[in-house]
Amino acid sequence: MITRMSSLFLRTLREDPADAEVPSHKLLVRAGYVRRVAPGGYSWLPLGLRVLRNIEQVVREEMDAFGAQEIQFPALLPKEPYEATNRWTEYGPNIFRLKDRKGADYLLGPTHEELFALTVKGEYSSYKDYPVTLYQIQTKYRDEARPRAGILRGREFVMKDSYSFDLTDEGLAHSYRQHRDAYIRIFDRLGMEYVIVSATSGAMGGSASEEFLAVAPTGEDTFVRSTESGYAANVEAVTTPAPPEQDPATKPGAQVHHTPDTPTIESLVAFLNANTDRAFTAADTLKNVLVKTRVPGGDWELLAIGLPGDREVDFKRLEAALEPAEIAMLEDKDFARNAFLVKGYIGPAALQANGVRYLTDPRVVRGTAWVTGADKADHHVVDLVAGRDFTPDGVIDVAEVREGDPSPDGRGVLVAARGIEIGHIFQLGRKYADAFQLDALGPDSRPVRITMGSYGIGVSRLVAAIAEQSHDERGLIWPRNVAPYDVHVVVAGKDETLLAGGEKLAAELSARGVKVLLDDRKASPGVKFADAELIGVPTILVVGRGLANGVVEVKDRRSGERVEVPVDGAVQHLVDVVKG
Amino acid sequence: MITRMSSLFLRTLREDPADAEVPSHKLLVRAGYVRRVAPGGYSWLPLGLRVLRNIEQVVREEMDAFGAQEIQFPALLPKEPYEATNRWTEYGPNIFRLKDRKGADYLLGPTHEELFALTVKGEYSSYKDYPVTLYQIQTKYRDEARPRAGILRGREFVMKDSYSFDLTDEGLAHSYRQHRDAYIRIFDRLGMEYVIVSATSGAMGGSASEEFLAVAPTGEDTFVRSTESGYAANVEAVTTPAPPEQDPATKPGAQVHHTPDTPTIESLVAFLNANTDRAFTAADTLKNVLVKTRVPGGDWELLAIGLPGDREVDFKRLEAALEPAEIAMLEDKDFARNAFLVKGYIGPAALQANGVRYLTDPRVVRGTAWVTGADKADHHVVDLVAGRDFTPDGVIDVAEVREGDPSPDGRGVLVAARGIEIGHIFQLGRKYADAFQLDALGPDSRPVRITMGSYGIGVSRLVAAIAEQSHDERGLIWPRNVAPYDVHVVVAGKDETLLAGGEKLAAELSARGVKVLLDDRKASPGVKFADAELIGVPTILVVGRGLANGVVEVKDRRSGERVEVPVDGAVQHLVDVVKG
Repeated sequence: MITRMSSLFLRTLREDPADAEVPSHKLLVRAGYVRRVAPGGYSWLPLGLRVLRNIEQVVREEMDAFGAQEIQFPALLPKEPYEATNRWTEYGPNIFRLKDRKGADYLLGPTHEELFALTVKGEYSSYKDYPVTLYQIQTKYRDEARPRAGILRGREFVMKDSYSFDLTDEGLAHSYRQHRDAYIRIFDRLGMEYVIVSATSGAMGGSASEEFLAVAPTGEDTFVRSTESGYAANVEAVTTPAPPEQDPATKPGAQVHHTPDTPTIESLVAFLNANTDRAFTAADTLKNVLVKTRVPGGDWELLAIGLPGDREVDFKRLEAALEPAEIAMLEDKDFARNAFLVKGYIGPAALQANGVRYLTDPRVVRGTAWVTGADKADHHVVDLVAGRDFTPDGVIDVAEVREGDPSPDGRGVLVAARGIEIGHIFQLGRKYADAFQLDALGPDSRPVRITMGSYGIGVSRLVAAIAEQSHDERGLIWPRNVAPYDVHVVVAGKDETLLAGGEKLAAELSARGVKVLLDDRKASPGVKFADAELIGVPTILVVGRGLANGVVEVKDRRSGERVEVPVDGAVQHLVDVVKG
Repeated sequence: MITRMSSLFLRTLREDPADAEVPSHKLLVRAGYVRRVAPGGYSWLPLGLRVLRNIEQVVREEMDAFGAQEIQFPALLPKEPYEATNRWTEYGPNIFRLKDRKGADYLLGPTHEELFALTVKGEYSSYKDYPVTLYQIQTKYRDEARPRAGILRGREFVMKDSYSFDLTDEGLAHSYRQHRDAYIRIFDRLGMEYVIVSATSGAMGGSASEEFLAVAPTGEDTFVRSTESGYAANVEAVTTPAPPEQDPATKPGAQVHHTPDTPTIESLVAFLNANTDRAFTAADTLKNVLVKTRVPGGDWELLAIGLPGDREVDFKRLEAALEPAEIAMLEDKDFARNAFLVKGYIGPAALQANGVRYLTDPRVVRGTAWVTGADKADHHVVDLVAGRDFTPDGVIDVAEVREGDPSPDGRGVLVAARGIEIGHIFQLGRKYADAFQLDALGPDSRPVRITMGSYGIGVSRLVAAIAEQSHDERGLIWPRNVAPYDVHVVVAGKDETLLAGGEKLAAELSARGVKVLLDDRKASPGVKFADAELIGVPTILVVGRGLANGVVEVKDRRSGERVEVPVDGAVQHLVDVVKG
């Protein structure tokens, strides 16, 4: 198969698009793979569509290989199923909503849990029917507040979403593992550098969940990884190891100190170090942070979070920990209404005496001694011991995670990195089955509630994620499995013999099953070389002046390595390179 | 490739769906190809998706074969380009409209003329760039007033839409011809019975246009075809041949007759035949029908249509003839306001004296004599001769077309038939290029306005159209090129040897490149045979009791013909059948 650039619908651009910040966006536009149509809406030009289809095909093959079955739902969906699960409301402004000519409510599907659950319920009834895994590769819609980075975060995009349906938790774990393995094969075949991170569930509700992140400095997602082990996790999912408990009896008794004008941790530590003969650090203090929370349909309630004074509360971790509750900061009127809250001097005693729920950091284990507020202006208490002088209502792991923190698996310390979410696997559990009474009739004729998994791959996003990982200052460098063509034949000169030579080699390569992009344009060799680098086909065959001496040049786009090969052996040489 | 029915996501239904009227809808639902999700919204189950993809592939191959280049646009489109062409308004309630979170207007694309024109304008600038033909195979949306017949007329559907861009009218004619030829190859490969009819343009605006209609009694479109020639046309596009002109001098002078109580053609003819010595038929009378028309932005105006009294005005032909003007019937107040209109006795004289535009049927040629109204109650005029006694303002060809009418090509007479629109090819001309100033810089450095063609194929509708043409009372019968599988292997019995035999044959067929659906379920042979007939794979291999004697049975789904073949030669036999 040969595509001639003289007629290909492609015009490369010299300049980066004005709205582009990340390399994939710049290069995919400059090289003519995509064009912007609307905010977060892109058209796929011929080269881009070829890459997208190649990725789809890899995904499809690996899904089919483990028995997942492809189906396809509409993107335009009625409101009712999404009302049944409350997602119609929960999505808020993040989905596109519309009415049909009769005034009925519709949405453009962001994910299809509801439809898959209803469809399985419609077709299957017996335990013998299960398990089943269904998937689709489909255009999806989200009304992103800030569409950005070209196709990396669009409002219309292609996803593979799949759903497993099992009778038992063990079955779900197996389906989850099948997907995990398939995703590893997919991202390996696509030549990606990625990590699998423990993830919180987002708005989906459920339990076990992992994300596949393509490592890229431009990624939106921050994650941490261990310097020593394979551990990697979303910051929201990092669990802080609890230190060993200590014996409270070995600790001095708690003493209240007059600490004038010390409303901050910094001022408190400075005062204590100046006015006692002990050396304190911020990590010895117990900071008590107050927020208000409200579960859907409930009232606002106070929540106090106790954590070492050298750390801030990470709001994203807090949100993930309290989901689906709303969280708000306290206002002046809240302090006014709760006079026991002495700003800058809040301690466990007043919180617990006044019925405020009090959760502490995992580091606040039994026997640890803390400097904390004495619930009285200009006073702190020293050597307040957990499990002796106060007992929190529970543990909350929401302190900021820092580079250098110990890895939760006990091996090495954490470092931060950034990534692009390219896959998400997720044990949904029975949330959707409950919403729709999705049951199988068991062998004993009693209903068995089905348990579901939900698994996504951002197919169109992968085009950009691969481009983020695989480019240089001159252009794109496609991994072989996704490249739009196998070989880019550049006819470097206007001489008719060169063109004839290029055509002949292209025809021979095509006959051997090699997909060829042939630059048969009348442009200068310089323009053609620059376009070849920009477009990023992995192997470039230059048919130039050497042809008169019976040689052509084969260039590897990634390494830049060039070899001269005899024209007679060029086709076999290239077939070997392509088939790898 | 083998799909086992024991795990296939498929449950056939015994009963027709309650909302189904046409065979394709009933059978595609019963055989588990599609499921209804919303009015006009269907999901594709595994078998249906396979057929859809097979059709897509045939379309893609034939488009690629003549150099059309595939791209893909978003379905969610901003309003602005459609405002520039006025289609945002013209589509009225027929498109889905929505707002994003910022309140910006969007639509779900029904066709993409605007985006293609803008994209070509964005990439191309020189005459050397042209011609180019681009296409996409994409999900489209129309808010049909009455979605019906399953996937035959849905609100979300898959279309191939392509657009040609040429410098000259001759170039457009060539691109049009390329598409026409490709469509013929596509529908031939899909095994369809179809006609190509001259069509009016619908809401698209433009000139030459033809529709491909799949012949089917359940089709929504009526067309006529000649009994003698290949002539076929939409009723809207039929042109009535004008009879030869006659010499007015040979005709008697016009005479006004007192024809009491004859407001209808029938009563008039009866009166004249009873009260004169001549024999009149309804075809001798000239009926004058009045309507009001209004061009967009204009005022209502009267229009009189004169046509032989034995024919009615065909409102669809009238709409097509007057497009884009609106048409309305006269109300009592219109008659009151125009006292010269004497209901039942309207004649050309008063119309023309009062400045009413008067258009007549092509049969009203110079020299023909008519009985028509005398503009006075209970009076008609006889022998009113066209070109002598009155001269119409023009011709309008909107009388009903009847079976038995002469074919416009002069060969045979017309008969009526029904069809399903599966393709439409259309010389758009410069409407969209004008809207967006799509010009190429010519060789003389002057701009050349581009001329476009627009070409559609209803890809998902084809699944239903093929099913309409190819089924019997027991189920679907897929043409080989679109069938979900090549061979359906039915293990007819629960004996383990039969299952092993079926598995072995399936494996051998698969190894030869045959796509196999293997019924390995524990169901009874009767259930399996019924499902095989319903599903409609063209060739059925029955592995049953004969296996013990070394034979299996091959059944042709369409003819019902069965042959016993030795099990040893079965694979080769089937490969021969499949490869045809």
